Amino acid sequence: MYYTPERSEQEICLVQKKYEPQFELKTESVFAQCNGYLGVRAAGGFPSLDGKRGMFVAGFFHRAYKEEVTELVNGPDAFGFRLKIDGEEIGPDRTDMPEYERRFNIHTGELTIKERFCLKSGSRIKVTERRFASVENPHLLVQKVKISMETGKIVKGELLSGIDAQQTNSGVSHFCKVDCRVYERRFIHVQGYLEKDALSVLAVCQSVDGQKSVPVFTLARRGILGSYQFEIEENGCWEFEKYIYVQKQSDQVPLDQQKEYLKECKSAGYESVLDKHKNVMRSRWKKAAIQIQGASLEEEAAIAFAQYHLMGMMPWNNSKSSVAAKGLTGEGYKGHVFWDTELFILPFFQYVFPEQARNLLDYRYRGLEGARAKAREYGYQGAMYPWEAASSGEEETPLYAALNIHTGKATKVWSGIKEHHVTADIVYAIWQYYSMTDDEIFMNQHGYEMIFEAAAFWVSRAVWDEDRDAWVIRDVIGPDEYTEHVDNNAYTNYMAHYCVSLAVKLTDKVEQEQPELCHRLQIGEKKKQWMQFVEKLYLPQLNQEQILPQDDTFLSKKCLPNIEKYRTSQIKQSVLKDYSRDEVVDMQVLKQADTVMLLNLFPQMFSPQTVKKNVLFYESRTIHDSSLSYCAHAQACAAIGESEIAWKFFQKCMVIDLDENPNDSEDGIHAASMGGIWTCVVFGFAGLSFADGALHLNPKLPKHWTQMDFYVRIRGRGIHIRIRAKELWLKTENAKGEPLQVQVGDQKFILKEQLHVEYAKGEEKVT
Amino acid sequence: MYYTPERSEQEICLVQKKYEPQFELKTESVFAQCNGYLGVRAAGGFPSLDGKRGMFVAGFFHRAYKEEVTELVNGPDAFGFRLKIDGEEIGPDRTDMPEYERRFNIHTGELTIKERFCLKSGSRIKVTERRFASVENPHLLVQKVKISMETGKIVKGELLSGIDAQQTNSGVSHFCKVDCRVYERRFIHVQGYLEKDALSVLAVCQSVDGQKSVPVFTLARRGILGSYQFEIEENGCWEFEKYIYVQKQSDQVPLDQQKEYLKECKSAGYESVLDKHKNVMRSRWKKAAIQIQGASLEEEAAIAFAQYHLMGMMPWNNSKSSVAAKGLTGEGYKGHVFWDTELFILPFFQYVFPEQARNLLDYRYRGLEGARAKAREYGYQGAMYPWEAASSGEEETPLYAALNIHTGKATKVWSGIKEHHVTADIVYAIWQYYSMTDDEIFMNQHGYEMIFEAAAFWVSRAVWDEDRDAWVIRDVIGPDEYTEHVDNNAYTNYMAHYCVSLAVKLTDKVEQEQPELCHRLQIGEKKKQWMQFVEKLYLPQLNQEQILPQDDTFLSKKCLPNIEKYRTSQIKQSVLKDYSRDEVVDMQVLKQADTVMLLNLFPQMFSPQTVKKNVLFYESRTIHDSSLSYCAHAQACAAIGESEIAWKFFQKCMVIDLDENPNDSEDGIHAASMGGIWTCVVFGFAGLSFADGALHLNPKLPKHWTQMDFYVRIRGRGIHIRIRAKELWLKTENAKGEPLQVQVGDQKFILKEQLHVEYAKGEEKVT
Repeated sequence: MYYTPERSEQEICLVQKKYEPQFELKTESVFAQCNGYLGVRAAGGFPSLDGKRGMFVAGFFHRAYKEEVTELVNGPDAFGFRLKIDGEEIGPDRTDMPEYERRFNIHTGELTIKERFCLKSGSRIKVTERRFASVENPHLLVQKVKISMETGKIVKGELLSGIDAQQTNSGVSHFCKVDCRVYERRFIHVQGYLEKDALSVLAVCQSVDGQKSVPVFTLARRGILGSYQFEIEENGCWEFEKYIYVQKQSDQVPLDQQKEYLKECKSAGYESVLDKHKNVMRSRWKKAAIQIQGASLEEEAAIAFAQYHLMGMMPWNNSKSSVAAKGLTGEGYKGHVFWDTELFILPFFQYVFPEQARNLLDYRYRGLEGARAKAREYGYQGAMYPWEAASSGEEETPLYAALNIHTGKATKVWSGIKEHHVTADIVYAIWQYYSMTDDEIFMNQHGYEMIFEAAAFWVSRAVWDEDRDAWVIRDVIGPDEYTEHVDNNAYTNYMAHYCVSLAVKLTDKVEQEQPELCHRLQIGEKKKQWMQFVEKLYLPQLNQEQILPQDDTFLSKKCLPNIEKYRTSQIKQSVLKDYSRDEVVDMQVLKQADTVMLLNLFPQMFSPQTVKKNVLFYESRTIHDSSLSYCAHAQACAAIGESEIAWKFFQKCMVIDLDENPNDSEDGIHAASMGGIWTCVVFGFAGLSFADGALHLNPKLPKHWTQMDFYVRIRGRGIHIRIRAKELWLKTENAKGEPLQVQVGDQKFILKEQLHVEYAKGEEKVT
Repeated sequence: MYYTPERSEQEICLVQKKYEPQFELKTESVFAQCNGYLGVRAAGGFPSLDGKRGMFVAGFFHRAYKEEVTELVNGPDAFGFRLKIDGEEIGPDRTDMPEYERRFNIHTGELTIKERFCLKSGSRIKVTERRFASVENPHLLVQKVKISMETGKIVKGELLSGIDAQQTNSGVSHFCKVDCRVYERRFIHVQGYLEKDALSVLAVCQSVDGQKSVPVFTLARRGILGSYQFEIEENGCWEFEKYIYVQKQSDQVPLDQQKEYLKECKSAGYESVLDKHKNVMRSRWKKAAIQIQGASLEEEAAIAFAQYHLMGMMPWNNSKSSVAAKGLTGEGYKGHVFWDTELFILPFFQYVFPEQARNLLDYRYRGLEGARAKAREYGYQGAMYPWEAASSGEEETPLYAALNIHTGKATKVWSGIKEHHVTADIVYAIWQYYSMTDDEIFMNQHGYEMIFEAAAFWVSRAVWDEDRDAWVIRDVIGPDEYTEHVDNNAYTNYMAHYCVSLAVKLTDKVEQEQPELCHRLQIGEKKKQWMQFVEKLYLPQLNQEQILPQDDTFLSKKCLPNIEKYRTSQIKQSVLKDYSRDEVVDMQVLKQADTVMLLNLFPQMFSPQTVKKNVLFYESRTIHDSSLSYCAHAQACAAIGESEIAWKFFQKCMVIDLDENPNDSEDGIHAASMGGIWTCVVFGFAGLSFADGALHLNPKLPKHWTQMDFYVRIRGRGIHIRIRAKELWLKTENAKGEPLQVQVGDQKFILKEQLHVEYAKGEEKVT
C-alpha cells in the first residue's frame, strides 16, 4: 500500500508522507472530498506541475460538441491559491520543502496538507491546509489555510484565492457563458452556463486573526481572483477560511439564502461547521462500518476507504443521477454509469442503505425511454439499456479509443453497440433489491415494467439456430472486453435466460395486480414466446474438462504468448501496444472476469469443484486489466471456501486504488472495485446472501480475522452481525418487525431480537 | 533591461541567464518564434508551473460561444515534451538545475534553451533545446533536443513528445472535433476543426544518433503522444529532431505533399533547414536593419528586437489577416486589430516593405462591408470601422472588462461603441501610403472608396450646434481611454476634418477617373455637404495658456490626486483598483497620449513651443497605462528637437517588453510599441518624413549616436541613408528610377544616385 494508514481513536487516516509528484494525480483521486452531491479532487491549494484540479457535481452532464461525448463537467475551482511572501512565490514545486504530509481521514473525509517551507529570506513557515465537503449540507465546501512562522516574520504576505472557471475536461470547455460578480465587497460569485442549466459557485473568505485588510478583487477571464494581504510577527500565524456554496441552478436555492447560509458558517467557524458534518458522517458510519478483529490496519483502512468512497459517490437524495465508474473523483469514463453500478456498487447500498439502492434503480427507470429508443434503433423490442449512460438514458459510449498500432487509426469501441448484458444485469439487481426489501411500491411503479421490457428485448435479440435447434445470441461482447463479436457468450446467455425466466414467473401475478401495465406492454401476446425462449435458449454447458466455454469459439483460440508481461505491467491495457485489438480478440486472453462473474451471480449453479476449475482456468488467461476483475475472482474463491486463493485476489483488490503503482486511479478511483471490496468481505468471507426469504450465512473468514462486526438492513430491519471462527451473533436494531429466517450452513433459525449460533467452519479444501 | 544582450558577429541575442519563473509568461512572449504565418510562444519544452503554451496562426479566428468574443485560436502544441531518465522525471521545476539559459537570437529568431540538471542518481546531464519558425516555409516549425552526459550514463531514457490539442484560450476550447492519426508508424497528425476551417499539425521525429528504437504512440484526448526510448553511454549524447507542418485546412496543401516535405527536411537535418531559413531572414534584415554607431548594445538590441517582431507579426503574402495588438505572441486582446496597425505598425512597412503595407490596407478594404454595416447599425452613413477587428470586419470589442470596485459588476467597455477615430486613422494611413508609393492601382481599387466612405461616416456623425454655429462631434472616446463620453475630442475632430478635407480634395479627380465609383457612392450629392462640414466643423483651439483642450470638458475636471502612485506602479491600470471607471473619467487623468498623438500626425500644425507646452501639460496627467504612450511622447519631443526629453521617453518605450517588470507582456508583446520604436528612431531622431512629393530629413540624433544607417523605399526606389551629427548621405539601391526631391532642413536637393549633405543640427532648445 502506497499510503500509510494511521489510527486515532475510531478514525483511520491514510497518509502520504512524501511529496512525490508522480503520485499526484492518483492521490488527488484517492483523497478526494466527495459527499454524493459533488466531489473535489484532493489537489493541494498551491499550483502544481502534475495535478489536475477537478470538481464534479453529480448529474451535471454536458456534451460540448456533436463529436464529443457527454461528460460530467469539470466545475470551477475554488480551492486553488497562490501565496507570495515578501516577493517570493511559495509552493511545493518552487520552494525548498523539507517536510510534506497529505492526510486523508477516511472516517470524516477531511483532508489535511501540511507543508514546511524554507524561504529564500531564511524564514521558515508551516502551511496547513484543511478542507472538507460537508454531508450536512452537501452544497458546502470549506477550506482553512493556516500559515505559521517557525523562524522569521512576514512583512508583506499575499494570498491569492478566488474562483476559477477556466477548468476544462482535458481541454474541452463546457460553459457557454461565465458570469462573474462581487457582492458586498466580499462574496465572489462565478456562474457557468450550459444550454439548460448552470453551475453556481459562491464564496466568502475571512482571515481569522483580526487583520481587517480589505481584499482586492480582479476580474479574470471566467473567474475572479481575490488578493488577501497579511503580515505575521515572529512566532505568529495567520489563518484564512473560505466557505463555498456550490449548486446547480436547477437546485434553485436563491442567492440571498446562500449568502445568509455562508455568513452563518463564517461566524460559526471552521471547527463548528466541521463538527456538524462529522455528526452526519458518524451516523452513516454506524451502519456502514465493518469492524474486524485481527485484520491489519492496512486491511481495515482499505475496507473503510472503499466504504468512504461508496458513500461519497451516492447521490443520497434523488434518483436523477446514479453512480459513475469513477464516482465523483475524476474525468475517467466521463462520469458515465455502467453495469458496475448494479452489480458491484448496488449490493452495499441494498444491504446497508436500501433507500439509496432504490434511487439507483429509479435512475434506470428514468432511462427506460432511452433504452426503448436504443432497442428500436437496433431493430429490437422492449428496452435495451445503454452500455454507458449519463443523464438522458441514451447510449453515451464513445465511438473511438486507442490507436490501432498497425493502421494508426483510432480503434472503434464496440461496447456501446455490442455489449448487451447490462440489460440483464439491471434486472438481476432489481430482483435482488426486491427480494430483500419487499418494496412492492417500487416494483409496481418501476420494477415490473423494467423486467418485462428487458425480457422483451432479450427474446427479440435471439435468433433461431436450426443446427442447434435452439435460440442463440450472436455477435455480442461479454463482460470480458478483449473478446468481441462472439456467439453465445455464457455470461450473456445465462443472464438473458435468468431475465426472461423471471419475467415469465412474474406475468401471472402482475397481470392480476397491474392489468393496465401488462396490457400496455402486451404481455399477454408475448408470454408464450418468452416461455419458448426460456425453454429453448442455448446455454453453454461444461465441456469434458468441466470448463464452461466463455463463448462458442473461445476455447479454440490460441493463447496469448507471454501473458505474464501484461499481467505484471504497471500500465493497464499494455497488450494493445503490442497487438491490435483484433489480434487480441483472436486469442484466449481476458481483460477481466467473465465466466467467473457468472459463477458469482449464481453460486448454486455449479459444484465448488467446477467453480474452482473454471476460476483457475480463466484466471490464468486473464490480464486483470479491469478493476472489476480481482474482486470477482476473490469473491468466487471465497464462496467455495478457497480462502487462500481468495485472499490472494482480495489483497490485489483491496489496493487497486491504494497500491504503489502511480499509473492507476489518475483519472478517478475505481468505483466498482470499492463495491467489490464490500461484496468480497460480506458475500465472500462472511458468506452472506439472501435467498428464498432467508438470510444465509456461510462464514469463511480469512484465518487471521478473528472477529468481524457489520450491519445489514433486511426487509426494514437493521441487524448487527458478529462473526467469529466458530460462532456468530445476530442482533436486531430494535425489537419491532417481522421475525426473519436465518440459515447458517445447513442450520435454520428464526431471528426475532437476537441469535447466537455455533457453526463448523467449512475448512475442507475443494479439490 | 531584464534580458542581457550579447553580440556575435552581425547578430544580437537576448539572453535570460537565470531561471526566474515570475518572468516565464513575459519571456514566452518576448522570445516567441514568429514568421507572420504563425507565432509560437517560447515556453520551454519541459512542463512548467508558470508558463502558458501558445501557437497562433494568423487569421485563424473563432468565436467559441455567442457570449464570448472572436479570438485567435490557441493551436495544438507540438514543442512540449517530458523527459524520464531511469525512473526520474526531469524538468526545471522538478530537478536540481545549477545552470539555465534561454537565448533568443533577434536576427535569426532561433531560440536556444540550455539546462544543466543534477539527477538523483548522481548523473549530470545537459539538455539543449533549439527551435525556430521557418520564414523560408512559414508552415514549418523545427525543434531539436540534445541530451549530453556530463557524468554518468543513461540506461533507460524516455522522451515523450507529441501533438497536444488540449490547449485552450484561457479555458475556452475552440475545436469542435479533433482528429488524431498516425501514418506509416512515424508521422503523427492532429487536426482540430472549427465550423468552417481546421488547423492541421503534422509532425515527424527522428533521433539522429543511429538508435533505431521504434516510437510507441498513445492516443490521448485531443492529441497523440509518442514515447521515444534511448540510452546514453558515459560522455555520450542523444539528439532528437522534430519537424512540424502547420496549416489551416483552407491553405489546401495535400497531406502527402506535407509528408514529402517533412521527409526532405528530416533528411536534410536541422542545421540545413535552419540555414535556408536564415538566408531569407538575412534578405529581410538587409532592408530592415538600423545600424547605429555609438548606441549601446542594449539600444541596438531593443531596436532590432522591435523589428524582429514587426517582421514576425506581418502576414507577408496575403491580406486576409492583419497585425494584432500582440502580434502572434499571446492571447492578449484576442488577436484583434486596432488603430495600432495603421498608425504605429504600418509606417515601418510603408517605408521598408511597402508591398506588405498595402496588404494591411487591403485587409481594411476586406472589412469595408462590415464597417458599412456598423455605420448602418448606429444610424450613420458610409463606413464606420470597428474598434477591434478580426476576420469579418465586424466589431469584435468585448462588452465587459474589469470589475467596478463599488458595484462588483464587470464594467462596460465603451470603446467598441464610442471610440470612432479609427475610421479617420485608416484614411490617414491610406494617404500616407499613397503619397509615398504612388500606388494608383490600390487607390483605384480600394483606397478612394475607403476614403469616401469614411468621409460620409464623419459627416453623418457630426451634429449641428446652434450656439457654436458649427458642426460638433459629441459623445466619443478619443485615443485616451480614461476619458469617455466627451464632446469634441481634439484628436477626433481634427482627424475627422482631415479625412473629409481629403475626400473633398479628391472628388474632382476621382469623379473624372472613376465615375462609376463616384456614382455608386453618390459623391455628387454628398460633396457639397462635405465641403460645408470642412468649413464649419468645430476644431478645438489653443486656450490662453496655449493648451489645446483635449475635449470640451477635460480642462475643467479635477486632477487625480497622487498620480505618481499609478505612474510608477508595476501593474497596469492599477488606478481602477482605487477608483471606478466613472470616477477616473471624471478626472484629468490620461491612460495614454491623446492630444500628443495629434501633434505627431500633424507636426506642422503648431509651433515647437506650443507642442512642448502641450506635451508637458498632458504628460504630467498621463499614467502611460498604454504601451502606445511613451513612443508617442518620445516622437513628439524628438520632432521639436527636445532630444533630452525625447530620450527619456524613448528609453521607457524601448524596454516596454524588455524591462524588469515581470507583469508586462505576459499575454503577448506590445506590437504598437514595436512600431513606435521604429517611428521614434526614423521619424523622430532621423527626422524623416515624406510630404509634398519630397523626402524630408531633419536629423536630431541623440548625442551619443554618432552615425545611423538605415534603409527606406520610396516610390519604388530603395535608399540607404547614413546620418551623422552634421552630414548625411543618401544612396539609391540602383541607378534606375525617377530622381527624388530631398529636403534637409531648409536645403533642397535632387537625389539621382547619391547625395552627400552637410547640415546644421538644430540644437537650439525650444523655450
